[in-house]
Amino acid sequence: MRNFDQNSITQAVLERVAAAPDTRTRQISEALVRHLHDFVREIRPTQEEWAKGIAFLTDTGQMCTGARQEFILLSDTLGVSMLVDAINHDHQGAVTESTVLGPFYVEGPPEAALGSDISGDLPGEPMYVSGSVAAADGSPLAGAIVDVWHSDEDGYYDVQHSEDAADLVARARFRTDVQGRFHFWSIKPAAYPIPHDGPVGKMLEAQGRHPWRPAHVHFMIAAPGHEKLVTHVFVAGDQYLDSDAVFGVKDSLISDFTEQPAGTAPDGRTLDRPWCRLTYDFKLNPASEAAHRAA
Amino acid sequence: MRNFDQNSITQAVLERVAAAPDTRTRQISEALVRHLHDFVREIRPTQEEWAKGIAFLTDTGQMCTGARQEFILLSDTLGVSMLVDAINHDHQGAVTESTVLGPFYVEGPPEAALGSDISGDLPGEPMYVSGSVAAADGSPLAGAIVDVWHSDEDGYYDVQHSEDAADLVARARFRTDVQGRFHFWSIKPAAYPIPHDGPVGKMLEAQGRHPWRPAHVHFMIAAPGHEKLVTHVFVAGDQYLDSDAVFGVKDSLISDFTEQPAGTAPDGRTLDRPWCRLTYDFKLNPASEAAHRAA
Ligand SMILES: [Fe+2]
Ligand SMILES: [Fe+2]
Repeated sequence: MRNFDQNSITQAVLERVAAAPDTRTRQISEALVRHLHDFVREIRPTQEEWAKGIAFLTDTGQMCTGARQEFILLSDTLGVSMLVDAINHDHQGAVTESTVLGPFYVEGPPEAALGSDISGDLPGEPMYVSGSVAAADGSPLAGAIVDVWHSDEDGYYDVQHSEDAADLVARARFRTDVQGRFHFWSIKPAAYPIPHDGPVGKMLEAQGRHPWRPAHVHFMIAAPGHEKLVTHVFVAGDQYLDSDAVFGVKDSLISDFTEQPAGTAPDGRTLDRPWCRLTYDFKLNPASEAAHRAA
Repeated sequence: MRNFDQNSITQAVLERVAAAPDTRTRQISEALVRHLHDFVREIRPTQEEWAKGIAFLTDTGQMCTGARQEFILLSDTLGVSMLVDAINHDHQGAVTESTVLGPFYVEGPPEAALGSDISGDLPGEPMYVSGSVAAADGSPLAGAIVDVWHSDEDGYYDVQHSEDAADLVARARFRTDVQGRFHFWSIKPAAYPIPHDGPVGKMLEAQGRHPWRPAHVHFMIAAPGHEKLVTHVFVAGDQYLDSDAVFGVKDSLISDFTEQPAGTAPDGRTLDRPWCRLTYDFKLNPASEAAHRAA
C-alpha cells in the first residue's frame, strides 16, 4: 500500500473502503471513489484548481445557516435534486408529479385553519387557492397534511428576511377536511432568482447562466399509507418556465392562476380589487409502492 | 426544457453549462455534471440518503476554521489529493517525489536562522535535520525557501492547540546557504490520527478504516526557476507506512531517523541524552517542465 500512481491509487482507496461493515455504505463509498477519481482523471486539475475546488466547497458549507442551504442550491442547480427526484418518483402520470424541495422549507410550519389568509401584511395581488388531496384511485384523503410556502411579490421568502419564527409568512400547514379538500388565501407569488450572492451564484455566473425560477407555490402533502408528495404548482405563462435554474418544471404542474375581477370570492369574501384563483387537485402514490421500490 | 427524466436531465444540465464563456470552466462543469449524474444514477439514492449527503457536505464545510480544513481531510482520505498529486508530478524518479500538502500548512511560517531549534519548549527526543536542495542535475540551489512543519511527540500540530501566531512551534521557514544546504533542530514527530472528531472521522468509522498516518516531517521547498516541491519525509519502520489514512507514502520518501547516543552533534551542540538524526537531499523539478505540462 505505497507508491500509488494515477491509476493504482483508485484500487487502493477501493480496497480501503471495502472494509465498511454496512453494505449500503460500502456500495456508496465504492461508487463515490470510482466516479470521483474518473472525474479527476478526466479534467486533470492543477494544484491551483484543486485548491479552488476545496475553497468552493468550503465556502458553500460556510454559507449555510438556518435560513440558507447553499448545498441544496448547488444540488438543485447541477440538476442532482431533479435526478434524485426522478429516480424516486417515476409515476408515469397516475399520481401528481413531484419536483425539488428547494432550500426554503421550514420543518413544522405554523398550523392554520382552512380558509385562513396566510399573507400577513404582505402587499400583493390576493390569491385564492383551493383543491383536493386524493389517493391514486381518486378516493378523497381526509386529514391529509398540506404544507404550503411561496415567495412574496418581490420574489423573496419569509426566511430570507428573518429567521425569527414569529416572522414566518406566506407559509402554513393545513389539514384537508372530510372530503379531502382545502382552501386558503394568500398573495400571488413572483418569479425569483435563487439566492446568488454566494458560491453557487458565482458558479452560475461562470457558467453563463441566469439564476431565475418561474413563479410557483410549494406544496408538501402527507397522508397515512401514502408516499409524501413534494411538489410545486407553477404559474402558467411565466417567462422562465423553459429555463428554470433548477430544472424543476413539468407540464402537469403548470396551472392558470386565473385573473378574477373585484367582487365576491367562492368563500364569500368580498374583494374591492382584482384577485387570482388557483385550483389544483393532488393525487398521492400509495406508500406500499414506495416501500417496494426502495426494497 | 421541461419534463426531464432520469436520463434527459443530464443532457439538459450539460446544455445549460455549455454557455460558460471560459473554455476550462465549461470543460470542468461538463465533466462534473456527467460524472456526478453517473454516480447518482448508479447508487439511486433515496430522498433520505440525498438529505444525508447534503448534511454531510454542510457539516464538512461548517467544521472548517482557520486551523481546521475538513474538505482537505475529505480529499485526502478519498485519495483525491494523492491522485491530483500524481497527475501533476509524474517525475519517474529524476527529482524528489511529492506527496499531500495536508491540512496543517500555515502560509508564511516564521523565518528561522539555519541551525535554530524550532521545538520551543515542546518535550520530546531531540532531532537534528540536515540536507540540501539541488536542481535535477545536482547543482546546488542557494537561497531556496525550505518550509518545515511536523507534529509533536503526542501527534498534534501547533495549530491544533492554538490559532495564535505566537504559539506556532515545530514549524519554520529556512533558506538554504550558498551550497544549497540547511540544518536545524527540533523534536522527533510521532504517528498521529488525522482529526477524526468531525464528519470525515464519522466517514472513516463507517468505512471501517483507522485514521492514522505514519510519523513524518513536512517540507515545502521553493526556488526560482523550479517547481515548488510539497512533500514529507517519513520515519522508517513506522507501523502505519502501509496503511496511511491518506495514501501518501512513497518508498523514496522513507528515511531512517537514526538514533544517536548522548554526546556532540555535527553542529557542535552537546546533548546529555540520546537524539536522532535525519539527513535528506532534495532535488527540484525545473519550472519549465511544469509549465510545459500545464500547457
Ligand atoms: Fe420556491
Ligand atoms: Fe502531517
